[in-house]
Amino acid sequence: MSHSGGLAVTAMKRCDELGAISAEPERLTRQFAGDAMRRAHDAVAEWMRGAGMVERHDNIGNLRGRYEADAMGRPTLIVGSHLDTVRDAGRYDGPLGVMVAIAAVQRLHDLRKRLPFAIEVIAFADEEGLRFSSTYLGSRAVAGTFDTADLDRTDGEGVTMAEAISVFGGDPSRINEDRWQGGKLLGYVEVHIEQGPVLEDLGLPVGVVTAIAGQARYRITFTGSAGHAGTVPMRGRRDALAAAAEFVLAVEAEAASHEGLVATVGQLSVYPGASNVIPGEAALSLDVRHPDERVRIESTRQILVRARDIASRRGVETAAQPLSENSSVPCSASLQSLLAKAIEAAGVKAVHLASGAGHDAVPMSDLTGVAMLFVRCKGGISHNPAESVTAEDVSVSIDVLSRFLELLAKA
Amino acid sequence: MSHSGGLAVTAMKRCDELGAISAEPERLTRQFAGDAMRRAHDAVAEWMRGAGMVERHDNIGNLRGRYEADAMGRPTLIVGSHLDTVRDAGRYDGPLGVMVAIAAVQRLHDLRKRLPFAIEVIAFADEEGLRFSSTYLGSRAVAGTFDTADLDRTDGEGVTMAEAISVFGGDPSRINEDRWQGGKLLGYVEVHIEQGPVLEDLGLPVGVVTAIAGQARYRITFTGSAGHAGTVPMRGRRDALAAAAEFVLAVEAEAASHEGLVATVGQLSVYPGASNVIPGEAALSLDVRHPDERVRIESTRQILVRARDIASRRGVETAAQPLSENSSVPCSASLQSLLAKAIEAAGVKAVHLASGAGHDAVPMSDLTGVAMLFVRCKGGISHNPAESVTAEDVSVSIDVLSRFLELLAKA
Repeated sequence: MSHSGGLAVTAMKRCDELGAISAEPERLTRQFAGDAMRRAHDAVAEWMRGAGMVERHDNIGNLRGRYEADAMGRPTLIVGSHLDTVRDAGRYDGPLGVMVAIAAVQRLHDLRKRLPFAIEVIAFADEEGLRFSSTYLGSRAVAGTFDTADLDRTDGEGVTMAEAISVFGGDPSRINEDRWQGGKLLGYVEVHIEQGPVLEDLGLPVGVVTAIAGQARYRITFTGSAGHAGTVPMRGRRDALAAAAEFVLAVEAEAASHEGLVATVGQLSVYPGASNVIPGEAALSLDVRHPDERVRIESTRQILVRARDIASRRGVETAAQPLSENSSVPCSASLQSLLAKAIEAAGVKAVHLASGAGHDAVPMSDLTGVAMLFVRCKGGISHNPAESVTAEDVSVSIDVLSRFLELLAKA
Repeated sequence: MSHSGGLAVTAMKRCDELGAISAEPERLTRQFAGDAMRRAHDAVAEWMRGAGMVERHDNIGNLRGRYEADAMGRPTLIVGSHLDTVRDAGRYDGPLGVMVAIAAVQRLHDLRKRLPFAIEVIAFADEEGLRFSSTYLGSRAVAGTFDTADLDRTDGEGVTMAEAISVFGGDPSRINEDRWQGGKLLGYVEVHIEQGPVLEDLGLPVGVVTAIAGQARYRITFTGSAGHAGTVPMRGRRDALAAAAEFVLAVEAEAASHEGLVATVGQLSVYPGASNVIPGEAALSLDVRHPDERVRIESTRQILVRARDIASRRGVETAAQPLSENSSVPCSASLQSLLAKAIEAAGVKAVHLASGAGHDAVPMSDLTGVAMLFVRCKGGISHNPAESVTAEDVSVSIDVLSRFLELLAKA
């Protein structure tokens, strides 16, 4: 077995171990600053030490392991992902990236090799936002964009974020000190499961992320006229659901007509919602994403125009309420190029693909250039116990990350 | 003012009075065998007596007023509608038909006129089924199709139907005696608000009902594959809501292509129903109605074929669960013809239209030939406090019903 192969077996075993560290007995749920997270930290800290790193806990609750450079005054590369999970999670979304990072450092350590830069492996405290309905607590603290107003948020049991941080061992008044203070950075690299089917469809173990898609979310309503399903003739109807149905298909058609665009209606409610009453109102969610801001913005505009066209033709009212909008985050061209070279050096065809989901790389892009390596996952399934990756693909990802470190050392 | 005009003013006033007899202070809700129904009976019984009728209460809780014929051994015409309401009802759906029937008898009584048939005005006990989620309790008792198993149904407070009947003064063990036992019947005639916009669109006060539409109800599900709204490309999706949306439009198109067909999707639920998750399942209701059984059955079949076509093309599963099916009830051709003649004699254009809603005429058709006269209602609105009819239209309906009685006497 190759060095990467042995490291992959260990990484897989560690993902299994972490997968058993949960706040709930029958399923994997590991929240920000909870007891399960503490136990996960205990395990990961030991693995970091075993790979020659010195670990520390910051105030927000990130676990950071540092593998020093070959000399003083060198820059640092941050490699990270998150240890928190959604409820009833799979075992790879987040933890795999931390395990692959540790494995790549382990390889250097086993070879007694130092690079002309330090490596800081960060296991972020909260990417999923399950406990406080927050986003990217850990990486925002490191990037210096943490919003202290979030400290007043409460979890399902009424515990504030500030209290949770204190109990976990951090000082909520000193989160600003978590901001990167380690000098020059070479960038941030994150290994993560794809959470989509693209690599599986291409038959490839890994891929280079070009950008993290921007996203717009809206709540759209159509308001027609409720009426008796038996007595109002079809031509006299102003059926809000029929308008919404036409809109759902218009959203689908717009998305299908632009490569890389995804647009989803995931929620739809009908009022009054009785089988013998013509719907008077339909409310739905709209989620539009594309790595290219111009495409996303123009397509979203087109979709909203379609809503008005449909409503107008059917004599119903429509309203669109913007809920959130996130710009796309392009990955560093130079880091992408090095990752692609590393993939080819590993004997794998290098493909580039966008990420439709958000990652810790998003807030980290405010601090430094970012890059991501996606790992194929079975059926594109994530946020589900059925999440699955192969040891072979993990081996490739460790090999690629190791080669990337070597290439960066020579760059 | 004409005789009918004066009677119409009285009928309108009585609808107002009944509209104030409610189980709830701020809205009109008058259930089967409740205290409000008792008070309504007290008022209606007095009006029946004032019109020369002898009234009696039967076991199920109908109030029947009999206006005798010109001689013994004559047949009977039943004229009726219901006194119960939905929750937060309008004041005309049901009561108007009883008030118009009493007015027509009042006219004969005022003229000291007897016809060669008796008239039995029946104020049915329960058409809406609010209290026991039942259907047509009063008219089914008269038609002899009451299901004694219904006696065990309980209302929202755990009271059985049998108990409610006893408290109201009936004998639940003798409901079979409510079956028509008065000898030869000439038919059943019901005056009712249209509950739709057809007469208003035509600018006509009344119309003759041709048939009460048959109805089929289904629960249809589409099962695709849930997935991440950001990471699953459009071409890899099996979106259950997109399939359902296409189906909603197919239902609408099928209905629009057949005169008199109405088809409605009034309920639609999406699972898991998160804005960032592609819908894995969509469940919806389907309600199809047409007065011609062949059209309804064939169109329903076409709609279900379309569901399978859509599902097949999109790679999703679909299932259709039949919930209920009621055959259409054609109205008596001879009674329809007499009603049309009566309308023309009143100087109004006689139009024929189908009823999309069910009425007491449906169970009564098991007993005798039925006919219905629809009265224009504002905006086609019913089951709503905004229900509205004009005194002028009510005057026409009383005039038409009176002329109908005269024509029937000569037939």
